[in-house]
Amino acid sequence: MEAFDLDFLFHPQSIAIAGVRDASKFNAGLMFYKALSGFGYPGRIYPLNPNGGEVMGQKIYTSLKEVPGQVDYVISAVPSKSAPQLITDAAAKGVKALHFFTSGFGEIENANGKKLQEEILRIARQGGIRVVGPNCLGLYCPKGGLTFNPDVSKESGPVGMISQSGGNASHALAEGNSRGVRFSKVISMGNGADLNESDYLEYLTNDPDTKIITAYIEGIKNGPRFLKAVKNAAKIKPVIIFKVGGSEAGAEAAVSHTTAMAGSSHVWEGLLAQAGAIQVYSIEEMMDMVVAFLYMHPPEGKSSVIIGVGGGASVILADEFSNAGLSLPKFSKESRQKLISLYSSEAGRIFKNPVDINNFESPETFAETIQIIEAEERVHSLVVHIAFDHFGLVSEEDKDFMVGTYQSLILSLKNKIKKPTAVILHSFAGKKSRQMAFEIRDALTKEGFAVFLSIRSAAVALNRYVEHHRRLKPGFKA
Amino acid sequence: MEAFDLDFLFHPQSIAIAGVRDASKFNAGLMFYKALSGFGYPGRIYPLNPNGGEVMGQKIYTSLKEVPGQVDYVISAVPSKSAPQLITDAAAKGVKALHFFTSGFGEIENANGKKLQEEILRIARQGGIRVVGPNCLGLYCPKGGLTFNPDVSKESGPVGMISQSGGNASHALAEGNSRGVRFSKVISMGNGADLNESDYLEYLTNDPDTKIITAYIEGIKNGPRFLKAVKNAAKIKPVIIFKVGGSEAGAEAAVSHTTAMAGSSHVWEGLLAQAGAIQVYSIEEMMDMVVAFLYMHPPEGKSSVIIGVGGGASVILADEFSNAGLSLPKFSKESRQKLISLYSSEAGRIFKNPVDINNFESPETFAETIQIIEAEERVHSLVVHIAFDHFGLVSEEDKDFMVGTYQSLILSLKNKIKKPTAVILHSFAGKKSRQMAFEIRDALTKEGFAVFLSIRSAAVALNRYVEHHRRLKPGFKA
Repeated sequence: MEAFDLDFLFHPQSIAIAGVRDASKFNAGLMFYKALSGFGYPGRIYPLNPNGGEVMGQKIYTSLKEVPGQVDYVISAVPSKSAPQLITDAAAKGVKALHFFTSGFGEIENANGKKLQEEILRIARQGGIRVVGPNCLGLYCPKGGLTFNPDVSKESGPVGMISQSGGNASHALAEGNSRGVRFSKVISMGNGADLNESDYLEYLTNDPDTKIITAYIEGIKNGPRFLKAVKNAAKIKPVIIFKVGGSEAGAEAAVSHTTAMAGSSHVWEGLLAQAGAIQVYSIEEMMDMVVAFLYMHPPEGKSSVIIGVGGGASVILADEFSNAGLSLPKFSKESRQKLISLYSSEAGRIFKNPVDINNFESPETFAETIQIIEAEERVHSLVVHIAFDHFGLVSEEDKDFMVGTYQSLILSLKNKIKKPTAVILHSFAGKKSRQMAFEIRDALTKEGFAVFLSIRSAAVALNRYVEHHRRLKPGFKA
Repeated sequence: MEAFDLDFLFHPQSIAIAGVRDASKFNAGLMFYKALSGFGYPGRIYPLNPNGGEVMGQKIYTSLKEVPGQVDYVISAVPSKSAPQLITDAAAKGVKALHFFTSGFGEIENANGKKLQEEILRIARQGGIRVVGPNCLGLYCPKGGLTFNPDVSKESGPVGMISQSGGNASHALAEGNSRGVRFSKVISMGNGADLNESDYLEYLTNDPDTKIITAYIEGIKNGPRFLKAVKNAAKIKPVIIFKVGGSEAGAEAAVSHTTAMAGSSHVWEGLLAQAGAIQVYSIEEMMDMVVAFLYMHPPEGKSSVIIGVGGGASVILADEFSNAGLSLPKFSKESRQKLISLYSSEAGRIFKNPVDINNFESPETFAETIQIIEAEERVHSLVVHIAFDHFGLVSEEDKDFMVGTYQSLILSLKNKIKKPTAVILHSFAGKKSRQMAFEIRDALTKEGFAVFLSIRSAAVALNRYVEHHRRLKPGFKA
């Protein structure tokens, strides 16, 4: 199957934005204009409005016809009733693609919306124009200088995303960026009236800039085609899918949101799993999986050893890891003896798995502890955790120091640990704890550690990650 | 059954702290001393150390004998081997209760620990001393001026907590405080060698300052007694229990942590449910339940209506609420028509449940929208949500303004909505979004709104809350 090459969508030489008003009130056209200018889009941007005028010192053209040069790409922020005229003009101008931010088409109750959607599609096909949307935020692609969000990373990265919701595309970008994830392309596709989820998936499968594919899917236009596309994609890159609309109310909402027919969740779960997709159930879980793929090499099995401070945290960690499907092997008698003999006292410590080192004795002791537990044959991954609000007695100032010390300890493990390692920063409700947790998250992420922000999310992600590799490798150790 | 009155534990007239050193290194005795002084404990505090000296300008006594006045309560931060001498001295001094922060007793592998625990218990019983712990942080009680944490609220409130982990007690305090929750008593009970979970539960049941009981339980000493205590407590106040150690690894960790025999999770789940406890599976979920009890009156049924901004968020909300066990009834035809006619356009909005109002048109429109959906007969609770990172296009500065506007809209509902209402602030990974979310959380909490920080946690808590009241009321509407 040959995928349609959509590369031209992401690298237009010039863009016109229809519906730009230089007004103080909310004005989507102006916002696109500002977002693209601020993001450093390298080509020409032509603002359009029948009334003409100026925006930020630039002439507003009254129509596409009036624009002097070539226009590759049009963003529409005009009301839906003006859409047919706009696309007719675009066809005359030789525009290659038109993105309708405009909504009020197939997704609304009113039958006129559906008629209007058919009409613009008809004109687009006649004029050889591909349509993004309608009813969406459109495209983010740092290499092409495209964005629908003024405050996101300008760095390109290996993650592609297809989203049937602009809000979730924005959220995924924010969530990913905050965790060190950079994107090749984020596609907010809305109703997908012309280009749909299968088109984009086939494109990202062949896109050399995209190494990991993520998708937020409300409904699927052509089931067999999409499943085939997932299967083909999953053969060469991880495909992480958040399929929603499984509940009756969710399916109702999906239809009203983007015309998507959601279908039964159980059926889709089975089919997507069979096709090789990794399924997640929130945008946060999606980015957890991405973090695992980016920052951890695949564990060879399901056995983890956990180390950190706190007995209560250790019990919760043990339960959550077990519930998620992972196992925490017991140490050999020799390893336990070695561990106990490293420390001055057993009091307040637990030399089982999870290991509770309580107040660590020295960086050397910590390094030796890690060495002993990593050497255990049945251990496939390491988990280091910091439980911020568990430090009773310690004042916020002292906590700063203590937590900073643990951060250095974790950083000192870089290039020393060979087994896949996850870091969990958890329990940071206090204001200071929260600030510290995010500072440490950023510092560790920068050094290439896989960081998770709750015990449960780490356990779930790690298990999914291991399960994914188990499916790929028949000789996998359970 | 008459509960042993433990009130004296929480209101000692004087406290001695054994094991205070004025050193720069970690020193638990000194930390208790600082925590209690800083918290404003109103009685006398006597630091103890065989070497004497001074701490923060105060004399350190060499032993309990040397202390001039009466001592009601002793906190032990001495090594476990010195524990028998300390408790012998305490008995001679007429001390009523001794809290062993000291660990290294029944919870460690070494058999000497268990022997030592028996020995201190024997001396305590002979001397008429009640023991808190060993191996715990002890007591927090704002009315009595007691704390084990320097940076927590000095305000007393209606929530009592029993915790077999000091870390989790600390975390619950931080999590609760950050969400406007104030505590009557937090009991970190450790091994519970003398006073155990049943003693404390019976006490909190009769404590007039405690209106809601929460408990983090690793294992139970006397099952039938504890279940009876839960049953009695649940008759007069909500009892929220986080029972851990259900997994094999978790049970292992629990024994090493606080000697607790955890027992099978399925068995406990059934028994605790039968006894009337509300079960949760994390400290965050525990505080979610507390927030529901504090800030929402009980819904009369399982039907919610959800309103906010964002189509993708609406689909996720619908799925998560349905998955949690709640239902989202459809509006009557008339209500839908009324809603649609309120707004200038259907485009970008969803007038189903969840309602997506997109950019709201005016505060009056929002108020009328709420009025219409609240008037729906089959609606038992309202949910208002803000999806921070879903605002594509909007720059951080503009977002500040928009989100602030939504905050005012929600605040304006105060005293207007009659049906139980939950607010969900979600999807705030961006740094600015995060700051805003917590500012708004604080502002809304201050005005008595029940605020949750993720869609899933809100759905799970609301369903548990409704389920709890369903069990109490046979005539409940599903």
